[in-house]
Amino acid sequence: MEMRFMKGNEAIAEAAVRAGCRFFAGYPITPQNEIPEYMSRRLPEVDGTFVQGESEVASINMIFGAAATGTRAMTSSSSPGISLKSEGISYLAGAELPAVIVNVMRGGPGLGQITPAQTDYLQATKAAGHGGFKMIVLAPSTIQEAVDLTYKAFDYAERDKNPVMIASDGCIGAMMEPVVLPEFKEPPAYNFAGRAKFNPNYKSVSSSENFEAAQEVFNKKLADMYEDWNKNDALFEEYMTEDAEYIIASYGISARVSKTAIKTLRKEGIKIGLVRPITLSPFPYEAYAKLDSSKVKRIIDVEMAIPAQMIDDVKIAVEGRIPVSSYGRTGGNIITDDNIIDGVMNIIGKEGGK
Amino acid sequence: MEMRFMKGNEAIAEAAVRAGCRFFAGYPITPQNEIPEYMSRRLPEVDGTFVQGESEVASINMIFGAAATGTRAMTSSSSPGISLKSEGISYLAGAELPAVIVNVMRGGPGLGQITPAQTDYLQATKAAGHGGFKMIVLAPSTIQEAVDLTYKAFDYAERDKNPVMIASDGCIGAMMEPVVLPEFKEPPAYNFAGRAKFNPNYKSVSSSENFEAAQEVFNKKLADMYEDWNKNDALFEEYMTEDAEYIIASYGISARVSKTAIKTLRKEGIKIGLVRPITLSPFPYEAYAKLDSSKVKRIIDVEMAIPAQMIDDVKIAVEGRIPVSSYGRTGGNIITDDNIIDGVMNIIGKEGGK
Amino acid sequence: MEMRFMKGNEAIAEAAVRAGCRFFAGYPITPQNEIPEYMSRRLPEVDGTFVQGESEVASINMIFGAAATGTRAMTSSSSPGISLKSEGISYLAGAELPAVIVNVMRGGPGLGQITPAQTDYLQATKAAGHGGFKMIVLAPSTIQEAVDLTYKAFDYAERDKNPVMIASDGCIGAMMEPVVLPEFKEPPAYNFAGRAKFNPNYKSVSSSENFEAAQEVFNKKLADMYEDWNKNDALFEEYMTEDAEYIIASYGISARVSKTAIKTLRKEGIKIGLVRPITLSPFPYEAYAKLDSSKVKRIIDVEMAIPAQMIDDVKIAVEGRIPVSSYGRTGGNIITDDNIIDGVMNIIGKEGGK
Amino acid sequence: MEMRFMKGNEAIAEAAVRAGCRFFAGYPITPQNEIPEYMSRRLPEVDGTFVQGESEVASINMIFGAAATGTRAMTSSSSPGISLKSEGISYLAGAELPAVIVNVMRGGPGLGQITPAQTDYLQATKAAGHGGFKMIVLAPSTIQEAVDLTYKAFDYAERDKNPVMIASDGCIGAMMEPVVLPEFKEPPAYNFAGRAKFNPNYKSVSSSENFEAAQEVFNKKLADMYEDWNKNDALFEEYMTEDAEYIIASYGISARVSKTAIKTLRKEGIKIGLVRPITLSPFPYEAYAKLDSSKVKRIIDVEMAIPAQMIDDVKIAVEGRIPVSSYGRTGGNIITDDNIIDGVMNIIGKEGGK
Repeated sequence: MEMRFMKGNEAIAEAAVRAGCRFFAGYPITPQNEIPEYMSRRLPEVDGTFVQGESEVASINMIFGAAATGTRAMTSSSSPGISLKSEGISYLAGAELPAVIVNVMRGGPGLGQITPAQTDYLQATKAAGHGGFKMIVLAPSTIQEAVDLTYKAFDYAERDKNPVMIASDGCIGAMMEPVVLPEFKEPPAYNFAGRAKFNPNYKSVSSSENFEAAQEVFNKKLADMYEDWNKNDALFEEYMTEDAEYIIASYGISARVSKTAIKTLRKEGIKIGLVRPITLSPFPYEAYAKLDSSKVKRIIDVEMAIPAQMIDDVKIAVEGRIPVSSYGRTGGNIITDDNIIDGVMNIIGKEGGK
Repeated sequence: MEMRFMKGNEAIAEAAVRAGCRFFAGYPITPQNEIPEYMSRRLPEVDGTFVQGESEVASINMIFGAAATGTRAMTSSSSPGISLKSEGISYLAGAELPAVIVNVMRGGPGLGQITPAQTDYLQATKAAGHGGFKMIVLAPSTIQEAVDLTYKAFDYAERDKNPVMIASDGCIGAMMEPVVLPEFKEPPAYNFAGRAKFNPNYKSVSSSENFEAAQEVFNKKLADMYEDWNKNDALFEEYMTEDAEYIIASYGISARVSKTAIKTLRKEGIKIGLVRPITLSPFPYEAYAKLDSSKVKRIIDVEMAIPAQMIDDVKIAVEGRIPVSSYGRTGGNIITDDNIIDGVMNIIGKEGGK
Repeated sequence: MEMRFMKGNEAIAEAAVRAGCRFFAGYPITPQNEIPEYMSRRLPEVDGTFVQGESEVASINMIFGAAATGTRAMTSSSSPGISLKSEGISYLAGAELPAVIVNVMRGGPGLGQITPAQTDYLQATKAAGHGGFKMIVLAPSTIQEAVDLTYKAFDYAERDKNPVMIASDGCIGAMMEPVVLPEFKEPPAYNFAGRAKFNPNYKSVSSSENFEAAQEVFNKKLADMYEDWNKNDALFEEYMTEDAEYIIASYGISARVSKTAIKTLRKEGIKIGLVRPITLSPFPYEAYAKLDSSKVKRIIDVEMAIPAQMIDDVKIAVEGRIPVSSYGRTGGNIITDDNIIDGVMNIIGKEGGK
Repeated sequence: MEMRFMKGNEAIAEAAVRAGCRFFAGYPITPQNEIPEYMSRRLPEVDGTFVQGESEVASINMIFGAAATGTRAMTSSSSPGISLKSEGISYLAGAELPAVIVNVMRGGPGLGQITPAQTDYLQATKAAGHGGFKMIVLAPSTIQEAVDLTYKAFDYAERDKNPVMIASDGCIGAMMEPVVLPEFKEPPAYNFAGRAKFNPNYKSVSSSENFEAAQEVFNKKLADMYEDWNKNDALFEEYMTEDAEYIIASYGISARVSKTAIKTLRKEGIKIGLVRPITLSPFPYEAYAKLDSSKVKRIIDVEMAIPAQMIDDVKIAVEGRIPVSSYGRTGGNIITDDNIIDGVMNIIGKEGGK
């Protein structure tokens, strides 16, 4: 067991190497630069290949090629870069290829700001590209969790033959914490030969053959897999929820800051807790669905996104039984515990509060 | 008033020209090819410019440049092409530029099939790119509606200084119907000079200045605009809903085929109707929220997508008061009225049906 | 020994498979469509992977990823597509990765025409991308040669750890001829692990380390390799040159049509022959340098390109000792023997001719 | 007349603004970052638009769109970025659109180094993309010249309706000198309406019409224009050539450093001078062709490129009458006068020298 003091971005990179990642293609875009930097030094030490593509489209397709020939591959970027990769991500899903994609989110839309944000929740969980595919999306809120989830991501990717996304942000990426690093795994030697015989996406569309029937079979197979995820893979954390009259719904860095806010609010006598999705996809609907509406007066969705994004999933989960409000910061502004306390009190206060 | 017998894709193109579109950049991708083809012949007649870019990224950015210099611009593509454009679409939203984007949807993910599908609902409505921006998304189910909505799309785009999407599909694109064409509008001479002074996205991120505050102001302005859309711009159609015990939620070509299925089902004594969103974004939540749960036993979401996508918005609208099921086809297979009848009966039958 | 009647594009694809190519990423663009089509059917039969990327940038980077993990990889396109791939080709050269790129040339610049041309000679031989790298460029003028050169291309690529280009055109691609197919080679298992330790291009440019010294060493190593090519790998064909007073300099389809023209011109008493480069790079300078200026009155460069492109290399070779003129067609117009006869007679006639 | 002390990159940007440039799209890539930075601050002051695209492909196509709607537009990048733009540059030429493209060259191929180089000479002058088009390429060797040539570039672009390239490098970009700035020009209001009627590149290739004839007419028109450039627009500087027995052929920063070396070599009694192309395209062949082979013993091509690139054009010019050698540095290493003195002496020494 090896403990080290690491930056979030570097910890993600090291965890990937230990999970057997041997090909990384990426590109400098703030605030994820430490990931390619680290990989650039680290991968050669384990006979792996680091490449700095000159574009995001290049990078996602380089890992497509590497994955299609049997190598554990990863790319990372930040928000605009993920948009550029979105066609490639959809192709990975269509071609049943395992790969890990890290999004160190920053403010948007468009160019936006290079400082942290959580404005790509909907993109990550609902439509990281065309065609209705889904990915497992993992959202760390500590550096240790960043390590553990990245390590796990490669297993999910290979189990499902599907891309997996780490939804991080500029805060998690830049902060330092002590972490316990996992064991090195041997890079597995998987073989995709013959895949093309069964998946209708390995063909030319100029082809005169009709593949719609095979495509529907394939889409239904994916839909079944998503159902399995919902049943088996949803992860969440509950924090001070037992007696809570108010529940904060929050993930990643916002959830972490929320805990500090909750401690302060509890001192003020507010019975408040947190339900934090660790997997944004599959969303832990059950964690919110089971909340007792006779006890919980209101859910307050806290995100670094305006308008709020995760709030849709929370609403789907609670089916109107508990009112849902939202508070957030955005534009690359990091949410503080004071922000959250004010935001929460403002919402609670309006309804006669505690 | 001019009536013509037109293919859906061509009708969209002609409506754009009449709405003042004078720059089109696009690229052949089945099943939207008639749009660039038509524009290629038509735009020179009105002193407009047609360009066939050699990539989707090229096309979306050509219209960015044209829009930024004051010209009404449009691009069109099909599903994988929209993924490639997604970073550009987010940039249009970030830069407050009006433009119209047509997605003639086909099966996915990845390469998928070149035949019709509706699997980009979530991409269009939730995250056509990074950064949490939204667009008005218009979903025609007849050729006349394709004309009218395209014509309107340019006005929305300029009113909001925001991209607008036409969510069409390979069926609407390829079918022919008589249409009444609208009057020619003079291409407006709008001026974006000076925009850069107020929008924090017209800058270089290498710049040492801090723009997070301005970015949040900008994001909140967008969020307010989205609220206005919800209040004022949601469009929907109700069909045989008055006495309905079952409601089909469906849009575009699926909604159209659903009407045929409803007529047959009504003959069988099934009290069934349709609520069809015309604007997928803003979603007409109210149209579903107002359904009387003492009368409506179940909503059946019908899409050419598996898993269903619009179902999330329907669930958010009804807040658990009415059960929601889904039936669909996918993979480029066109849904038939028989499919829908079987799908509906199967769902209804399970619960003791009519 | 297996003989088959094949189209040029298909013959190239089959030769690649027999040379051990197991990964192909490409994209429909006329006039090279038969290559991806063929690969789409053929590669699965040998447990290889065919992928239709949705962009040229995607395809070149997919083969980068595949090559970097040890798989023989190929892509093909036509002129505009090669421009889009040019950054990727430069990266392959920078990263010392073997790959074969087929350019089935069509008319340009820009969109141009989808019919045959030879207007990418300078791009292929002088600057298929930035940074001054070179490739071996092979120009078949029969289907048999297309097969043999493609087969050989994979060996060059691996010997040199460098991309190799097949410079074909829409005529060679579309015509059919009987060909003898080579034996199947076992796909070699080469290993690029550790490459990054010695090549300064496997790093992050954000890195603070200084690599200029290593880069210059690397560039000089490449320059030495290009010198070796010049010494050892230049290939050309001489046709009726022995007594020739006029020499046509031409390659690919133009050279082939020139032979027909030469036969006719010879009947008219014109002593004319052909020197045809088979390798456009390294250019067979010696083949022209050795021409006897006391016998050869003029060299006539014949290309499907206006202005002529290969003429620069011919001029460098003859150093002014023999005058050099040019005749060509362009814009997607296929040159005929009558064209060449007229062009040659026009040039010869001016100087008092035969 | 306004004098200012400016960095090369900034001087280029200011000159563009004064030439009427009102749209700039670019992207951070070392060593050209000061251009977008400066434009980001400066363009809003003159009601112009700065956009940071998130890719090179985006940027070149944004200026395509802006140029096609009548706005003076510029983009800048460094070597790998130019490769990514190459398809767009070819499209600008095909569509007869004026635009200015700055390449602040760095070491390559591939990722290469972020420090100065001159390894894109062949790309700039022979094939900045497919299809055999040419651009006027201007190579400043002082900051004043950078200003004057950039100012002039916009006039060339509009006169010719063709892209123009500024071939700068990391040294010229980063050094500071006093410059006289030109007058502000009113951004001209040119109109491209109707262009499409005469240029066969404004169409859809899916179109069934045959445009090869029109394309050849267009190509020949371009070829005539290139001939006119050769006659009228070639620019060069001669430095201490009158009595020279040795001539350095060099451009840009290398030519500038060569002057220092020449002064030193002259002190040593070596009769050496410089012929410096200012326009790399059209290349000033005449400047070398007219050298008196009874006086000039040898031309020494000096570039920051190995193998040398401009040497081909020098050889074409002198037709073997004068021997041509080359000396260079590369890989991002800046050439010094000591390097050049050593390089020259080494070459001269071999042949019995002075």
